[in-house]
Amino acid sequence: MAKKRILLLGSTGSVGESTDQVVQNLDSELDLVGLAAYSSWERLLEQIRLHRPEAVALVDQQAAGLLRDALNKEQGLPSPMIYEGEEGLVELVRNTEADILLAAISGAAGLPANIAALETGKDLALANKESLVMSGSILTRLAREKGRQILPVDSEHSAIFQSLQAGTNEEVERIILTASGGPFRKTSIEDLQQVTREDALNHPTWEMGEKITIDSATLMNKALEIIEARWLFELPPKKIEVVVHPQSIIHSLVEYRDGSTICQLGPPDMRVPIQYALTYPHRLSLPVKQVNLAELGQLTFEAPDMERFPALRLAYEVLEQGSTAATVFNAANEVAVAAFLKEEIPFLHILRVVETCLRRHNPVEDPDLAGIFAADEWARLETEKILQQGCKESA
Amino acid sequence: MAKKRILLLGSTGSVGESTDQVVQNLDSELDLVGLAAYSSWERLLEQIRLHRPEAVALVDQQAAGLLRDALNKEQGLPSPMIYEGEEGLVELVRNTEADILLAAISGAAGLPANIAALETGKDLALANKESLVMSGSILTRLAREKGRQILPVDSEHSAIFQSLQAGTNEEVERIILTASGGPFRKTSIEDLQQVTREDALNHPTWEMGEKITIDSATLMNKALEIIEARWLFELPPKKIEVVVHPQSIIHSLVEYRDGSTICQLGPPDMRVPIQYALTYPHRLSLPVKQVNLAELGQLTFEAPDMERFPALRLAYEVLEQGSTAATVFNAANEVAVAAFLKEEIPFLHILRVVETCLRRHNPVEDPDLAGIFAADEWARLETEKILQQGCKESA
Repeated sequence: MAKKRILLLGSTGSVGESTDQVVQNLDSELDLVGLAAYSSWERLLEQIRLHRPEAVALVDQQAAGLLRDALNKEQGLPSPMIYEGEEGLVELVRNTEADILLAAISGAAGLPANIAALETGKDLALANKESLVMSGSILTRLAREKGRQILPVDSEHSAIFQSLQAGTNEEVERIILTASGGPFRKTSIEDLQQVTREDALNHPTWEMGEKITIDSATLMNKALEIIEARWLFELPPKKIEVVVHPQSIIHSLVEYRDGSTICQLGPPDMRVPIQYALTYPHRLSLPVKQVNLAELGQLTFEAPDMERFPALRLAYEVLEQGSTAATVFNAANEVAVAAFLKEEIPFLHILRVVETCLRRHNPVEDPDLAGIFAADEWARLETEKILQQGCKESA
Repeated sequence: MAKKRILLLGSTGSVGESTDQVVQNLDSELDLVGLAAYSSWERLLEQIRLHRPEAVALVDQQAAGLLRDALNKEQGLPSPMIYEGEEGLVELVRNTEADILLAAISGAAGLPANIAALETGKDLALANKESLVMSGSILTRLAREKGRQILPVDSEHSAIFQSLQAGTNEEVERIILTASGGPFRKTSIEDLQQVTREDALNHPTWEMGEKITIDSATLMNKALEIIEARWLFELPPKKIEVVVHPQSIIHSLVEYRDGSTICQLGPPDMRVPIQYALTYPHRLSLPVKQVNLAELGQLTFEAPDMERFPALRLAYEVLEQGSTAATVFNAANEVAVAAFLKEEIPFLHILRVVETCLRRHNPVEDPDLAGIFAADEWARLETEKILQQGCKESA
């Protein structure tokens, strides 16, 4: 069997490095034929030495120059094609033959490359939430037209995707996303008013970037996953639920209409869902510490509190609109979280600001990519305005 | 689509009645074309009125006579073919065209009928443990030869079968059967010595027959399920494990080599696995109360104690032999449990008697059906001897 040819965008980030390990472990099955990073050219150089890709891209053009110089000095290493700039990502994807693109660039920057992948007949393994949140209708329509698959890489959606192998979409009664509940799972609404930047960044179990740690504390992270799930699995919002499961062992569940619930559980190791996306429908060996239920002793569950965590409630409202509302939801949150991290607004204001922005938005039905970027830009400017008005009010 | 034609042996028992409900609920998909019971002719008559089967069987010949008389008096009810006696079960199976036999007769009595089903090209949905424990090699070889499937009906094996839909057999690292742990999960070995018949029959969560309640208390039930699993899923014994899970919500798990574990959970309702076996690979609607994890709050797990519950240890020893040992294991247990229920031996002696019988057995490799029945008979007589010797010794 020929090796599966993989493009990896975001190869020097956390998901990228895990993908690197997966490919090293399965080097007779998988081949990294293209790599892209933002600016970490030194790490990218190491990955080039190891994987000998046909092409690479760096968004940062200065970094691309440094990589070019370094490669010229390497003895016996065939230089890959080097693309640069944001458009370099798209060129890499368009010009390199591959079976699948693993999209691990966070933010909206990866969106055009993801679209290019589907357009040129590649499957799409998605590790970034923004793509589906912002452009779910575009990506899913394109995948259908081109007969390509969109495969989830984050652990919750991979769990649902895996559990769906035991049935069909029309047999699904509900899917249930598990949520760790974040650091404020048991914090009263009164105490949430006093939460500081430091409190919020002090996540009990995961070390993550600042933005995603705050999203985990507000449950915005789960709210975005609800929107992702709606597109990945083409389910109506009322069939998507959330249960709080602090141990994060069960990664999500699918409840079927015959009374059976199928779920996936596993260690908190990103290599598991990454490998499944890359080797689907096959399961190959991965040296990972398996879950030991007897050692764990217990798994606990509770209903999420929509009062203290309005992000979940807003996710359903956004989905009912099926328009640019999701883009606005995501963009307003990014701006509001940045303001919280700069200690400009209190914790509970993050979602209030997001909700205010959503209320002011005139949703565009079934937007094209330009419409999505316009909504994104509008939301960022509008959120800034809301923040300034808020500051004036509270001054 | 034509309705699936079903033969139901054991139609008036607990699994039979649940099957009856499943078929009523899906009467445009499923058709009960043959029914059999031991002696409950009055209930069978009601089922005949409802399902209008082509043929029925009663093992008890007097009951068959009473049914015949009653049917003669019925107005406008076309009489089915009526078979009687143990051989009547086999004739029913051989002479009635059907897609699948649901085998819900307990004990060895159903074995010849199960073999007849596979021989005449029917799939086999197994609700009785004895068939696979006694004749796993015969049934699985026959199913392979005839290209038919053996589908599990009990909840643990159905859970594994369902979880295997998300992968292949060769991708399985381990399967993990869940066990409630029985009423003596937390009882010390000292206290187990004092356990009475009444203590043992007082199961905390399930109302079952006396024999199976005792098997649940000794974990013999789980030991037999280990043997069943070995045949159903064609896995080596070392890939089969047990975890104690007192809430019995997760019905069993499959751990794959890629680090993912897939499991099935559901309400304690036999209709769920029965329906899956009958409609596989499809999942049709079943009006059942779904599991609500947030309401349950927690699921707990612990390792089984092979010291206090030697049945599990013996199951693995039996499997290593791959011979008539499993038949002897099952038969010796039946006799020993009967002695315990008659208060002739203390609780902890049940498995000691079984182990003694196993030690005295000269296993026959790859037995035929006659060899199996011979081993079964030998074990029953030998166990009686052991019990008498024990009584003499303790007198």
